[in-house]
Amino acid sequence: MSATIHGSGSRAKRVFDLAAFLASSTAGVNKALDGFLPAGTARPATIHRAMRYSLFAGGKRIRPALCLAAAAACGGPEADAMPLACAMECVHTYSLVHDDLPGMDDDDYRRGKLTNHKVFGEGIAVLAGDALLTQAFEIAAQCKGWQRYRHQRIILELARAAGSLQLIAGQVADLEGEGKKISASQLRYIHERKTSALLCCSVRLGGMSANCTAAQLEALTDFGYHVGLAFQVIDDILDVTQTSEKLGKTAGKDTKAQKATYPSIIGLEKSQRIARQLTERAFDALRIFRGRAPALEALAEHLLKRDN
Amino acid sequence: MSATIHGSGSRAKRVFDLAAFLASSTAGVNKALDGFLPAGTARPATIHRAMRYSLFAGGKRIRPALCLAAAAACGGPEADAMPLACAMECVHTYSLVHDDLPGMDDDDYRRGKLTNHKVFGEGIAVLAGDALLTQAFEIAAQCKGWQRYRHQRIILELARAAGSLQLIAGQVADLEGEGKKISASQLRYIHERKTSALLCCSVRLGGMSANCTAAQLEALTDFGYHVGLAFQVIDDILDVTQTSEKLGKTAGKDTKAQKATYPSIIGLEKSQRIARQLTERAFDALRIFRGRAPALEALAEHLLKRDN
Repeated sequence: MSATIHGSGSRAKRVFDLAAFLASSTAGVNKALDGFLPAGTARPATIHRAMRYSLFAGGKRIRPALCLAAAAACGGPEADAMPLACAMECVHTYSLVHDDLPGMDDDDYRRGKLTNHKVFGEGIAVLAGDALLTQAFEIAAQCKGWQRYRHQRIILELARAAGSLQLIAGQVADLEGEGKKISASQLRYIHERKTSALLCCSVRLGGMSANCTAAQLEALTDFGYHVGLAFQVIDDILDVTQTSEKLGKTAGKDTKAQKATYPSIIGLEKSQRIARQLTERAFDALRIFRGRAPALEALAEHLLKRDN
Repeated sequence: MSATIHGSGSRAKRVFDLAAFLASSTAGVNKALDGFLPAGTARPATIHRAMRYSLFAGGKRIRPALCLAAAAACGGPEADAMPLACAMECVHTYSLVHDDLPGMDDDDYRRGKLTNHKVFGEGIAVLAGDALLTQAFEIAAQCKGWQRYRHQRIILELARAAGSLQLIAGQVADLEGEGKKISASQLRYIHERKTSALLCCSVRLGGMSANCTAAQLEALTDFGYHVGLAFQVIDDILDVTQTSEKLGKTAGKDTKAQKATYPSIIGLEKSQRIARQLTERAFDALRIFRGRAPALEALAEHLLKRDN
């Protein structure tokens, strides 16, 4: 996965080994998550097995990778960003577990495996999601604090991104939009909340863990926002163009659920152009780092070109 | 509700106006919660209406009252304890919303009103619970911090009490115990987690908001633990002895769900004796306050003698 990065502005093209970065960050995150969570045998074993089942179901660890990459761009050590990277993954996983429930999207498969409620039953799946969300705050509270970025601020940041005006607002609007004709701007409202909010929070918390400057934080926010929007546009595209096998989840389910998506509203080709434009905007936001954010650049490029 | 308090040790009997204390604390908590939560009209309106529906469904505000009473016992102003009192109520309400779901206890009524999922549907009820849990951390992060009790410690305290080894462990054990013969010690395990954990956390956080001493915190922990156990024993007793109308929820549902309860395991009379003994232990824990914890004493007495 060695990739030539399309740097913006005057930066020369460089080679960054994203595959090595992802392998290392994923291994680090998995190890840290394993340490933060109660053992699978901890009483009551069912809930801890259920939490671990979804948390270690082969997720791509994109949010943690963005968090660690943002910390690196701001010169912070990985260890300081790790609790926040793990907290982001717990929030993400909880949202998937609940999203898959019969009363929500009613999905049987996720990442090529049976969904949590198919394995543990609906009651335990609700509780496993609850426990992962709670765990996220327990882990986040264990991060390093700074004068500029106190624990209070970090917890507020996380709670707001995951809360009823952001992540949950996106889920609600998504749920309520099923079967309805919605506009491109309404779809953007959903994407901003359902996906961008957490991706943006991931890079912001990474920056905060590195005691970043206000200008760096603004750049990371801009980057995270655009990468998040691009990410969801691409998700919509893949739902149309890929097989279930490739995606590890039911393909074509947006169409089946009559969910509005970018391809269904503005067409496939224009969607692909928008994803590329949003990614370019994300690259632009990184100018302030003057080439010292190669992992963030490579991640944005990788997310644009992914096929699952 | 002016009550003569059965003080322990050498304390003289005094009169504390618990009704006035509860009226005032409930009004304060309701006003603060209203201010902390997004307006019911905030987009998407559904989720905010659903959150507010359950949060303002006539809950008795026992946990916030315990939190405020503990702060008062330690000489702290109500305003400093208020965010934590509100956070506890959000956690409590979220746990009820999820507990009532069809995949869990499947209840149609709570506090005499239709449960959240009966009004808003299952998907929104899951999300409303999620949003209330997230909101709890957002509110808790806005409390006053001290050198001794930093935000980090307060968030950890809340997350652990609500997490998979405490509150959620109790829910899981309760769910898994249905229809099974369980021992008195297993039942105590459930009660310690399902009820005591949050009640104990409420008084501890109240103490922390008042920058209490280590000895005071220990006393509050001891008090909260015993009041919490007594509370659940009484809940079990009321489920057998009261009507649905009086309880505002389905009476006799423990028996129907073949849930083990204190009355079913050790009988009604012995259960009542145990509730009284646990409450006495709670009184004993308050000795350190030398009569300056009248609200906590009155609350423990009130919870023992309640009929709903």
